[in-house]
Amino acid sequence: MIFDLIIIGASASGMSAAIYAARAGLNFLVITKDMGGNAIKAGLVENYLGFPSIAGMDLIKTFQEHLEKYTPNVIFKEIESIEQKNTHFLIKAGEQNFEAKTVIIASGADPETLKIPGEKEFFNKGVSYCETCDGPIFAGKDVAIIGGGNSALKAVVALSKIVSYIYLVVIENELQGERVMIEKAKQIKNVKIIYQAKTTDFFGANFLEGLHYQDLNTGAKKEIKISGAFIYIGVKPNTKFISANLDILNEKKEIIVDKSCQTKIPSLFAAGDVVDNQYRQISIAVGEGARAALSAINYLDNVREQ
Amino acid sequence: MIFDLIIIGASASGMSAAIYAARAGLNFLVITKDMGGNAIKAGLVENYLGFPSIAGMDLIKTFQEHLEKYTPNVIFKEIESIEQKNTHFLIKAGEQNFEAKTVIIASGADPETLKIPGEKEFFNKGVSYCETCDGPIFAGKDVAIIGGGNSALKAVVALSKIVSYIYLVVIENELQGERVMIEKAKQIKNVKIIYQAKTTDFFGANFLEGLHYQDLNTGAKKEIKISGAFIYIGVKPNTKFISANLDILNEKKEIIVDKSCQTKIPSLFAAGDVVDNQYRQISIAVGEGARAALSAINYLDNVREQ
Repeated sequence: MIFDLIIIGASASGMSAAIYAARAGLNFLVITKDMGGNAIKAGLVENYLGFPSIAGMDLIKTFQEHLEKYTPNVIFKEIESIEQKNTHFLIKAGEQNFEAKTVIIASGADPETLKIPGEKEFFNKGVSYCETCDGPIFAGKDVAIIGGGNSALKAVVALSKIVSYIYLVVIENELQGERVMIEKAKQIKNVKIIYQAKTTDFFGANFLEGLHYQDLNTGAKKEIKISGAFIYIGVKPNTKFISANLDILNEKKEIIVDKSCQTKIPSLFAAGDVVDNQYRQISIAVGEGARAALSAINYLDNVREQ
Repeated sequence: MIFDLIIIGASASGMSAAIYAARAGLNFLVITKDMGGNAIKAGLVENYLGFPSIAGMDLIKTFQEHLEKYTPNVIFKEIESIEQKNTHFLIKAGEQNFEAKTVIIASGADPETLKIPGEKEFFNKGVSYCETCDGPIFAGKDVAIIGGGNSALKAVVALSKIVSYIYLVVIENELQGERVMIEKAKQIKNVKIIYQAKTTDFFGANFLEGLHYQDLNTGAKKEIKISGAFIYIGVKPNTKFISANLDILNEKKEIIVDKSCQTKIPSLFAAGDVVDNQYRQISIAVGEGARAALSAINYLDNVREQ
């Protein structure tokens, strides 16, 4: 069977697209490795209009309940490849092949890694990329948060209520992000901000015991003793399964789309954190999911009419 | 005082922009004629992710409560003009002048009119552009809905539970809009769909008593007796206050923006139903409001750094 539409990913953008697809009566399928994508790791979400303050995880549950009203066809698999086959797409996931006339890629973006010694070794043994998921493990202990942007600051605010002490390790000489978040973070008492500090390695026995950083001012190597380290230094788009010959990625490996969320291939669309979008926000992802779905519906209507 | 940002309009996009502006600590002002814009007239909203089914009016209330958390500065006035003055903007509204370094125009779009005899005369005396607002007035009576798109179909579904009988007067030979809406509308028993019918005039004494239409197949003039007529034939952007010399409008009088919601004037942004956007949707407007605000914040940060 050839689907009208396959949506890759069930993050905020994928779920929004699915609701529009369902309401338009499309024969569509969602293929995803999980529900919710990065929004789950978002901590407290306060800027998605209509929800003054909600945990990312709870917002995703609300989104999911909305989507389930339409009983969509969802398959939990990792995508291996997508290629063009005649007038449609062939998607390989697990051992299975799926075909569709149009595709919306909403595969999101994953946390960027430091790529330093100990990072892989102590992953889930102290090193984490998600305070919402792992924060409570470090109740009453000392932790480091690495990064100086909004995500790092959100983690500071949330963790400061749980852990004993936070070292905020910032490679720049100032904090980035929303001013309200910067001010909040600076007012917290159990936080020490260390600027111009380049984390060089994590150490420990079975579990994480600390990290070393280089003071970029003096060049000196310094040590912090911590039980947990949360890394918030940006994200990388999930586009590994997209081969170079589709030619839809930019140099950052993000998908290039136009204002309609259409790629240079007229039947291929993308939305959310995976596109060449300066801003990674739930509200923007939801809007783009809707837009990509409406563009796919338009495309199908035009093809049908011919 | 020169504001960092003035947001024109407090529809879904304007409110979303205001939340981002507030959280970024901008000194900003919202100037609007009302709260909610067209979303209030949306009837039942079922495709804004997180709200499976909610009246447009209630959704706007929820949005407003979210916004009020940040106690924004809101002034209720109609905008008369916006012009560039040195490095900033001068906005005239009522008798007052306001100045800002950046502006987001989120002034929305208003219902399109038929421009036929009787339409103005019987406005609010039977002729309406908003079933949510005026539907209950026609409880137990016969009405016409003019239009064949999603908004007309939503009105059919909502009014069919209130009124006695609905004539859906469609100029095309088929219905447009989401398939789920088309099917819903076709299943309703107290609705007659009249295709290829061009409404030519409204008639009555003090209040609306009926309309005439031309059967585009035969050319014959026909009459329907009704107490109410709801017109859903599209929208026109609210851009009257934008002078031609700013040169930011397209031939449909929509504001031309790029993917960042930026106009060709680097400090001027636009979002929501007023932009050159094929799709007028609450979810898209909310996303664009966020995007326009983040773009304005970026612009201000870059100017500050220089």
